[in-house]
Amino acid sequence: MFNRLCVIGIGLIGSSVARAARQRGLCSEIVAFGREANVQNMRKAKQLNVIDEFYTDIEAAVANADFIVIATPVGVVESIFTLLKPFWNDNAVYTDVSSTKASVVAAAQAVFNQVPSNFIPAHPIAGAERSGVDAGRADLFEHKRLIITPLDSTNIKALDKITRFWENIGSAISIMDVKHHDTVLAATSHLPHILAFALVDLLGRKDEQAEIFKYAAGGFKDFSRIASSDPTMWLDICLANKQELIPLIQQLQSELGKIEQMLAHDESQQIFETFSYAKNARQRFLDQLEQ
Amino acid sequence: MFNRLCVIGIGLIGSSVARAARQRGLCSEIVAFGREANVQNMRKAKQLNVIDEFYTDIEAAVANADFIVIATPVGVVESIFTLLKPFWNDNAVYTDVSSTKASVVAAAQAVFNQVPSNFIPAHPIAGAERSGVDAGRADLFEHKRLIITPLDSTNIKALDKITRFWENIGSAISIMDVKHHDTVLAATSHLPHILAFALVDLLGRKDEQAEIFKYAAGGFKDFSRIASSDPTMWLDICLANKQELIPLIQQLQSELGKIEQMLAHDESQQIFETFSYAKNARQRFLDQLEQ
Repeated sequence: MFNRLCVIGIGLIGSSVARAARQRGLCSEIVAFGREANVQNMRKAKQLNVIDEFYTDIEAAVANADFIVIATPVGVVESIFTLLKPFWNDNAVYTDVSSTKASVVAAAQAVFNQVPSNFIPAHPIAGAERSGVDAGRADLFEHKRLIITPLDSTNIKALDKITRFWENIGSAISIMDVKHHDTVLAATSHLPHILAFALVDLLGRKDEQAEIFKYAAGGFKDFSRIASSDPTMWLDICLANKQELIPLIQQLQSELGKIEQMLAHDESQQIFETFSYAKNARQRFLDQLEQ
Repeated sequence: MFNRLCVIGIGLIGSSVARAARQRGLCSEIVAFGREANVQNMRKAKQLNVIDEFYTDIEAAVANADFIVIATPVGVVESIFTLLKPFWNDNAVYTDVSSTKASVVAAAQAVFNQVPSNFIPAHPIAGAERSGVDAGRADLFEHKRLIITPLDSTNIKALDKITRFWENIGSAISIMDVKHHDTVLAATSHLPHILAFALVDLLGRKDEQAEIFKYAAGGFKDFSRIASSDPTMWLDICLANKQELIPLIQQLQSELGKIEQMLAHDESQQIFETFSYAKNARQRFLDQLEQ
């Protein structure tokens, strides 16, 4: 399908793309680009046969590459575009895997004036709280949703190729516009992460004064799992999507305020209805997940 | 250890107590008490051999019982004390399994004027989002914490018997005062439940307007699991512990407000520190859980 795939950033997602592409024979050769600080990680990726070669020189990394995947933290994407610009190949296909899309499109506009027609913004809805090349898996994207957010200027052939690539590694493709993507993901992913970090920050400080974690159980373990996510990555995501996130945080504060008032006034019926609505809504989510 | 155990309310927790007691041979006979509406459930418990007999008449249920476990929703406990009062046996041992303790002690005071010395308030930190006799398991309490909150008036022999009973079914016993129990559990259990219900309520309403659950992934599934808990039970718990919960909800609102402001002002370092603190605090919790 492609001759040479260059993965920029060989972490959890980047190495999973490489593994999946390798396993399904979608690229003849797979190389990685990274900074000096990533050499150890890239060396491990090569030892694991996840990639054939790695480079800290961008020109060498993208030479002859017809497929370039940017899999760095979202805050670094603009600097990657700047590195790529002098060697941009109009015949190659470029994509990314970032959790926010408006910020990536804005970064491309800032560097190229207009978004190159062969750069296709994409986001696989898959991940884990672990990170790094060791955490990658060839099946990470199987039966997972992958959102592509094409622009008016997007080259249809490049879009088609990216779509087929992701279908080939088992993802279910959804096409939506950039703004809608960021609105939806702010609600279902970024807000829950903020909430988990906020709660565990609050409780962690209480735990320092008087042991409380000792008496927390399985419910808390699951609820707080995403608070173990990588702080740097989530700082980037939350800042990149803050326009969508801030109103949601405010809505949640107000929702909590409503429940607090209902408790203060013993409004049993309203509390029951809120809890029941939530239970039913989660069931709707679970039913969809199983489809 | 006991001759006749009477479980009042044979749901998830009640039937797990019965199963565990049966399995370890801690009681010669096990019976259940419930209202007319619970007959079907109690009949199932008998068919499953979880109990030997069941009653809708409290006098018959507690006759000759030397161990009585109140395992109803916390909002019903006071009415159970009222039913038990005419047949109170000073030679039996009474306990409960409610998630809040001050409310149970207040209920006992309201009914008996002072808490009977042979009633020992207790709380096993174990559960599941499922409910009912089918969900019960003999090993539900194994390697789980169990908190006993004795009062000054508590009979030492009764306390000792209850402690040995729970140790025998595999729990790790902690003794603490009523107020401390309610403070700790509000933070590690009740607040996370409120938060999960609030978030899923908010997102469920958005999902009705524009599909968002379709794009939610594993992180959201774990985070929202406790929003599938029984609304009636959690309404009871939250109301019973609202004195502790309301200040915590306010603290969390303020924590969210701080993060919102940090995002608004691009305070990267502060956000990173908050997220990192939370990640490390959760690791501390996980390390304790494994001990």
